[in-house]
Amino acid sequence: MSINGGAPRTIKGYAAFAKDEELVPWGHSDVHTLDEGWGPTKYPIIVGHEIVGLVTAVGPHVKHLTVGDRVGNSTHPEGHIAYGGYAEAVRVPAEYAFKIPDELPSDVAAPLLCAGVTVFAPLKRHWTPNARVGVVGIGGLGHLAIQFAHALGATEVVALSTSDRKRKDAEALGASKFVTLKAPEDYAAHASSLDLIICTASSVLMNYDLYLSLLDVGGKFVVVGLPEDSVQINFASLILRQRSIVGSMIGARADIEEMLEFAAKKKVHPWIEKVPMAEVNTAIARLRKGDVSYRFVLEN
Amino acid sequence: MSINGGAPRTIKGYAAFAKDEELVPWGHSDVHTLDEGWGPTKYPIIVGHEIVGLVTAVGPHVKHLTVGDRVGNSTHPEGHIAYGGYAEAVRVPAEYAFKIPDELPSDVAAPLLCAGVTVFAPLKRHWTPNARVGVVGIGGLGHLAIQFAHALGATEVVALSTSDRKRKDAEALGASKFVTLKAPEDYAAHASSLDLIICTASSVLMNYDLYLSLLDVGGKFVVVGLPEDSVQINFASLILRQRSIVGSMIGARADIEEMLEFAAKKKVHPWIEKVPMAEVNTAIARLRKGDVSYRFVLEN
Repeated sequence: MSINGGAPRTIKGYAAFAKDEELVPWGHSDVHTLDEGWGPTKYPIIVGHEIVGLVTAVGPHVKHLTVGDRVGNSTHPEGHIAYGGYAEAVRVPAEYAFKIPDELPSDVAAPLLCAGVTVFAPLKRHWTPNARVGVVGIGGLGHLAIQFAHALGATEVVALSTSDRKRKDAEALGASKFVTLKAPEDYAAHASSLDLIICTASSVLMNYDLYLSLLDVGGKFVVVGLPEDSVQINFASLILRQRSIVGSMIGARADIEEMLEFAAKKKVHPWIEKVPMAEVNTAIARLRKGDVSYRFVLEN
Repeated sequence: MSINGGAPRTIKGYAAFAKDEELVPWGHSDVHTLDEGWGPTKYPIIVGHEIVGLVTAVGPHVKHLTVGDRVGNSTHPEGHIAYGGYAEAVRVPAEYAFKIPDELPSDVAAPLLCAGVTVFAPLKRHWTPNARVGVVGIGGLGHLAIQFAHALGATEVVALSTSDRKRKDAEALGASKFVTLKAPEDYAAHASSLDLIICTASSVLMNYDLYLSLLDVGGKFVVVGLPEDSVQINFASLILRQRSIVGSMIGARADIEEMLEFAAKKKVHPWIEKVPMAEVNTAIARLRKGDVSYRFVLEN
């Protein structure tokens, strides 16, 4: 089943989206795919995930959607990140088209569909009462992780960054504390202070042992950002305090539905910058430099 | 508080053990400590953990033990591995002296106190219904992990080894399957087939990504063996299938009590070889070569 290109109106059990209402936001996943950072990419490819639009047609077996519904799509049935979003229309499997709650504007809903659920699902899965939550990387994923952790009622939400640049943003997003981590003594000052860390950064140059040292006994370090190569870990960090490194990828259908409802109710809104679809290459150039606060949304 | 040396009959709330009844078994932890593999050791040191003996004296505040009780000791209150066992008598904190169930002979009970609880605690903590359990490293810890996983009712207990040498032993211990892992295709043939792996091996040369590939979605790789240096991990192994690497160290008091009761009831008995205390250096030399099936017990 392919959704990149082809005739978007050839409908066989799939929802198709109209031109005028479509929003096509995207993030680092698109750049990794463009750059083959995660493995070979088949070119030509139309990247672009986190897609929101109106249904213009449904297949004969689709019961839960009708023409005119406002829906979003983020993942393939196989769990891969969707693509085909940098376009005027796209065909997606109906079971991965989610109705957007009325309270969420389309441009705000779009980044939730991948970035949102990517951080929401592991927060819910690994939540503990009175959790003290750390967020590494205050970007497209991280700025949502801070909001969700705060909205879920974390005892503390600690933004962890290598620079002071985003302190004000992090506090506005709901962080109760902002910790600048430059030297080993910065980590030592906050040793064993967190129960759960959502790591949205994905540099192979990060010192993961230092980040693990921030976790209390039994704490979990959830990696949602995929480094492009192997990293070094000293198991002593894990064994001596029974810590875990946990992988998490996007979320299941139920996670996406729960996340959209929760975000609507708690007003978890991605901070976005809208860019016309025609200026996609300018946006990519800025994204490569990290010049985005915090998610571009491409708009037709 | 020191238990290595000093006058063992100077009792201030600590149990002391008599000469004649004392058994002092030990394992790889002692060699790591002797070799400073885990960090600097303060010499001179009397190593030796997994200690069983009869109580000869108790402190005035000790209520749960009386003279004549048969008890074992493995950990310090701080969670460090005990030492001081290569001796005729030893003084230990009363709260870390555990009564040995009558069904367990002393020589059999001794290795359970550290090796046993080290594998039992994470098996219990991370158990899932119908768990398919893998055990890496069929040695002092691994031969107990196989027995405990089997006794806990695992759907499958798979012994994972780099050679065929221990196939018969593993099957006798309760393994339902023995898998020899030499080339990447051996791992591929068993990809995503396990829910929980207890890794008792601790070589920095292991390819952890290959071992992680054996886990199904959401599976956990529990490390109880501490490599003497950092290891390489590719987070793709974790993220794409939501796997975890989990550290575990010995066990809490409640784990030790539960483990002793369970081992007595289910007849989980370490396979041991008894060596007179005076031949400790011969035993250490054999241990360094891996020539032990599966735990030496030094006897006074």
